[in-house]
Amino acid sequence: MLDTITRPTLLLDLEKMKSNIDFMVDKAHRLGVKLIPHFKTHQSKEIGNYFSDRGIEAITVSSVMMAEYFVANGWRDITVAFPFNRLETRVINDFLKQGVKVKLLVTDSDTVTFLAEHLHGTVDLFIELDTGYKRSGVSTHTFDEIKTIANEMAKSVKTNFYGLYCHPGNTYHEDSVEAIQSLWADSIKRMNQVRDGLMNLTKDLKIRMGDTPGCCVVEDMSGVDEIGPGNFVFYDLVMNYLNVCKESDIAVAVACPVVAKHEGRKEIVIHGGAVHFSKDHLFDENEQKFFGEVVILEEKGWSAIIPHAKLISISQEHGILKLSDKFFDTLKVGDVVGVLPIHSCLTANLMGKYFTFSGDQLEHM
Amino acid sequence: MLDTITRPTLLLDLEKMKSNIDFMVDKAHRLGVKLIPHFKTHQSKEIGNYFSDRGIEAITVSSVMMAEYFVANGWRDITVAFPFNRLETRVINDFLKQGVKVKLLVTDSDTVTFLAEHLHGTVDLFIELDTGYKRSGVSTHTFDEIKTIANEMAKSVKTNFYGLYCHPGNTYHEDSVEAIQSLWADSIKRMNQVRDGLMNLTKDLKIRMGDTPGCCVVEDMSGVDEIGPGNFVFYDLVMNYLNVCKESDIAVAVACPVVAKHEGRKEIVIHGGAVHFSKDHLFDENEQKFFGEVVILEEKGWSAIIPHAKLISISQEHGILKLSDKFFDTLKVGDVVGVLPIHSCLTANLMGKYFTFSGDQLEHM
Repeated sequence: MLDTITRPTLLLDLEKMKSNIDFMVDKAHRLGVKLIPHFKTHQSKEIGNYFSDRGIEAITVSSVMMAEYFVANGWRDITVAFPFNRLETRVINDFLKQGVKVKLLVTDSDTVTFLAEHLHGTVDLFIELDTGYKRSGVSTHTFDEIKTIANEMAKSVKTNFYGLYCHPGNTYHEDSVEAIQSLWADSIKRMNQVRDGLMNLTKDLKIRMGDTPGCCVVEDMSGVDEIGPGNFVFYDLVMNYLNVCKESDIAVAVACPVVAKHEGRKEIVIHGGAVHFSKDHLFDENEQKFFGEVVILEEKGWSAIIPHAKLISISQEHGILKLSDKFFDTLKVGDVVGVLPIHSCLTANLMGKYFTFSGDQLEHM
Repeated sequence: MLDTITRPTLLLDLEKMKSNIDFMVDKAHRLGVKLIPHFKTHQSKEIGNYFSDRGIEAITVSSVMMAEYFVANGWRDITVAFPFNRLETRVINDFLKQGVKVKLLVTDSDTVTFLAEHLHGTVDLFIELDTGYKRSGVSTHTFDEIKTIANEMAKSVKTNFYGLYCHPGNTYHEDSVEAIQSLWADSIKRMNQVRDGLMNLTKDLKIRMGDTPGCCVVEDMSGVDEIGPGNFVFYDLVMNYLNVCKESDIAVAVACPVVAKHEGRKEIVIHGGAVHFSKDHLFDENEQKFFGEVVILEEKGWSAIIPHAKLISISQEHGILKLSDKFFDTLKVGDVVGVLPIHSCLTANLMGKYFTFSGDQLEHM
């Protein structure tokens, strides 16, 4: 397969991916929570099938457009995990007409009123709560606001109050497994305080937590009903640096042709840049920014990360690898190297399709 | 047109774009250099037509894949401005068979040997030179290396030594027009020293300079034969911050639906994130990172940049706008705001197509 690669190519190790899916399905089962996986990372109908194979029927997406793609591919229970964009109500009505069960997130009562007035059927609604990440969601500190939204839902049969949703994305900025666990414990506590406060309004609210770091490392999920992680299907260097996954769990790599060697600066130019990786980065032990790590591609996968070999700079199509003398000497122009991505969701979104080691192509929306 | 927008949408102001094209075509004519525009920014056959209208026949692209797209759309003189990736030689032979004039960049003599052995026809070759940017190209300080490559070209009729190419991308990191001009003057001097040194080998080498900042602000182009800027077709906030363009020259904006308002922090959540803008950023006067600036959309264009309104954070689909109290109060959920991109090339690459204010859609490769 490798000898057919001539351009930047997104490689998918299916065995690693299946094992990542198994891990999360099994963990959810063991801890008694329902897994509603987020499909924003892979955005692929074929990869979706691997989840169906493990009994998954309800999924999460991050945009109505992505929901359209998965509805077109047969999915019938979809959460759009984004503060609902009322301009897309027509599409939601379309879904309802097709019998799709739709779950939406709201963060204000006006949107609930709007939905009650414009929907042609009933949707399930989450109130998105913010336990400290400060991206979207109503702060758990403003219970009055939450109650106003809940009261608005109660006015219409079209807006069924289903649950409380939280993406505690601040776990991505923690520096230890313990810190992630403690942040989750705090989030779950706040979510449950809100649920308790709403008990007189409705007794059956689901609590769903959304981030991969927490879903991977938290073992005590009491107080949680559903989890919606996405990134775990592939993981990436961010997850590895957080110790949320092992390096060997990372299921995607970009194959990049070597186009130039610069002996003086021990740097190599690859075809692989911002249009392939996006521009997320991490910092190494010397506080130097980098955009990916290097692996050697093999017939059925790739090697462990090569020490002292990093993608240190990218522009639109160019990538610059800084390498140890030893590794530099082993590479030549015309070779293809593997680069593990910092952020697999953005990389997959840019690359557009997946190539497996058995020579298959999998679609990306 | 605006009332049809329901999702993140890339808006193109055709009048601004045409005026940007006119500026560069006229400037090249006035200064007696040949404009070989870089099409990596727009990657659009329809936008390419606006260049044909101004007499452009030879173009530049940044990948062989992009060359395929423009060859398929009728272009017959193409420079692939990237250290040539020998794994794609088959495609080059395909181009030659179709009668396409192909210009490639090389940075080592082995690649020249490889081309001589594998090409089915003749290509024009540039040696890419590095005058200090340190991305790709042979350093102008290593004349022996340059001469080795030149000597290798002389051995085969298939590898015609056409010129010396330089993308002095370090202009992007300068902080004044004068600094860009002086950096260019230095680059041109070094390029001409190399040309002089090669005079006994060939007398007709072209010097091509590639970056938009220099092509926009340099008025003395003696010693330069060709220019290959790309970004100027749209410009963006980086170019505006460099004073390379006026704010009103920026020809693209992303229309983003407002999905939530956070009164407490005066922040607004928009649908517009890293899958729309990529992750390039600038720093404001308080050293705060930002990912775009905000404009009000109008029926035939957009307003000037709103003061104290910035896209301060983005994740996959979410964008967070930090706004002045006054502007915050004027916006409501369900509105659509415009965001000027930091880097228009990456934004256009992600958005996939353009919408004009007359309601037309233009393709992106």
